[in-house]
Amino acid sequence: MGIRIKILGSNSAAPAHRRHHTSQLLNIEGKYYLMDCGEGTQLQLKRFHIKAQRINHIFISHLHGDHYLGLMGLLSTMHLMGRSKKLDLYGPRGLSEIITMQLKYSETVFNYPINFVEVDTSVSKVVHEDDFVEVISIPLNHRIPCSGYLFREKKKNRRLIKDLLPPNLSIRNITKLKHGEDILNEDGEVVIKNEEITMPPKKSFSYAFCSDTKYDESIVPIIKGADMLYHESTFLEEHADRAARTFHSTAKEAATIAKKAEVGKLLLGHFSIRYKELQPLEDEAKAVFEESQLAIEGEDFVLDL
Amino acid sequence: MGIRIKILGSNSAAPAHRRHHTSQLLNIEGKYYLMDCGEGTQLQLKRFHIKAQRINHIFISHLHGDHYLGLMGLLSTMHLMGRSKKLDLYGPRGLSEIITMQLKYSETVFNYPINFVEVDTSVSKVVHEDDFVEVISIPLNHRIPCSGYLFREKKKNRRLIKDLLPPNLSIRNITKLKHGEDILNEDGEVVIKNEEITMPPKKSFSYAFCSDTKYDESIVPIIKGADMLYHESTFLEEHADRAARTFHSTAKEAATIAKKAEVGKLLLGHFSIRYKELQPLEDEAKAVFEESQLAIEGEDFVLDL
Repeated sequence: MGIRIKILGSNSAAPAHRRHHTSQLLNIEGKYYLMDCGEGTQLQLKRFHIKAQRINHIFISHLHGDHYLGLMGLLSTMHLMGRSKKLDLYGPRGLSEIITMQLKYSETVFNYPINFVEVDTSVSKVVHEDDFVEVISIPLNHRIPCSGYLFREKKKNRRLIKDLLPPNLSIRNITKLKHGEDILNEDGEVVIKNEEITMPPKKSFSYAFCSDTKYDESIVPIIKGADMLYHESTFLEEHADRAARTFHSTAKEAATIAKKAEVGKLLLGHFSIRYKELQPLEDEAKAVFEESQLAIEGEDFVLDL
Repeated sequence: MGIRIKILGSNSAAPAHRRHHTSQLLNIEGKYYLMDCGEGTQLQLKRFHIKAQRINHIFISHLHGDHYLGLMGLLSTMHLMGRSKKLDLYGPRGLSEIITMQLKYSETVFNYPINFVEVDTSVSKVVHEDDFVEVISIPLNHRIPCSGYLFREKKKNRRLIKDLLPPNLSIRNITKLKHGEDILNEDGEVVIKNEEITMPPKKSFSYAFCSDTKYDESIVPIIKGADMLYHESTFLEEHADRAARTFHSTAKEAATIAKKAEVGKLLLGHFSIRYKELQPLEDEAKAVFEESQLAIEGEDFVLDL
């Protein structure tokens, strides 16, 4: 599988119309990464039967309440449910202080370590890397320091064609084949040509999460060619003035960024409470960028072949 | 009407079995008072069609997350929905600092003033008073500083018997009658005897909210004779050791306090996530104190005649 994105909430400001605050769960090769954590995220995880303890990495974009007020409750529940595994937490300056102060007054010490990584919201750089992905910060243009996150799957291994594999191949040689190397004999001669018994690797996907931002083309080079872009679209173009004033985007602006960045698909979210019906937002985006969809909570979006 | 108590949540620690964290709404003569504010309280208010802006007083018992993590979100939503009315907030030391820090990092200044009243959790005294009630703090015995709250309706006016009222009675004389005074003529002679044209006032009720506490009889004199007592009953007696260790109570202990304090009714709440079925908690309490009920969320408990 590639990247599976579960929308846990995609409303802005206040919960409304049965829509919850921003949060998304990424499943990459069975690993869970949580993006933002609005109030009630732990309840949404339960609602969608997702085991919170499987989350080892949480990325917070910024410190407006609708993006992080569910974090303290989620961390506390992880503690109460007996977590001992380390949790990596990424977010802007201040997040660690807010958590620490709340722990102080509740006289609580979590049973598990939190590795807090302070994200510099002014630059784009790798903030996390593991066997499967690298995560790159995306400086966003919002009222307060705010960072999006680009998930890039690493280059995957070549796939062995089992029926063609010679017997008794050593683990070392299997690894070499997966990495695209030929198998040589002691004299350095090719005895197994890689491309004859392997297939090319599966495609590596990328997903960009841009939570809260006004229209700003400076992110285009960073997210260029991403397979999927989530870009906030708080307003319709008819409220473009309000969007600019509040450092938010319209659906048309989100679609314009998607088009300029030549992404595969666009997900729209962070909907204003003024819109009960969301279809006009999708329609407006599609007029600019056909592959636009609403990030409706509960839905899964899958990047795979 | 007297006092109407709406249970918004009554689970402890982590949300479970579709039960939410502690929060209760008191409606006293049409005025709303919120008791504790666990995560998702604003969603529960919506669910039960309660207008959050009507709340002018919020009382927080202590700074364990399951009792206050919904506060910041509720305050923010009040701001975003255009509140300008003052809000009175009562709680232990630290609460104001937590709010202030979160406002600082979100670079937000609320449109409405919050009057924060720091409650000394070590003494019982009047912390709030208005035309209808006085609210008295109840020092609880918990792992961290914690205060319950006793709501006492003030003495109500005598009720005029409309059919017996003489015509053209001045507002001043009506007020006198309501306050139990006779009407005198200029020579100081009684012309209208109060008890002949008024009925006694309606009963004034009292409600005690004891959110998190181990068994402690020192609260008995404070809550003596309350019409209704909410007393946490996190555990069954079979887990009494655990209750003592975590500074919580069993259903039997809650009922024992209710009995010693000679209250009218007992509400049980703050249920441990270990109990999916709650009936055994009620059964255990009833064996000691017959007028015991579970504080099930969504239910209303009314103190009236």
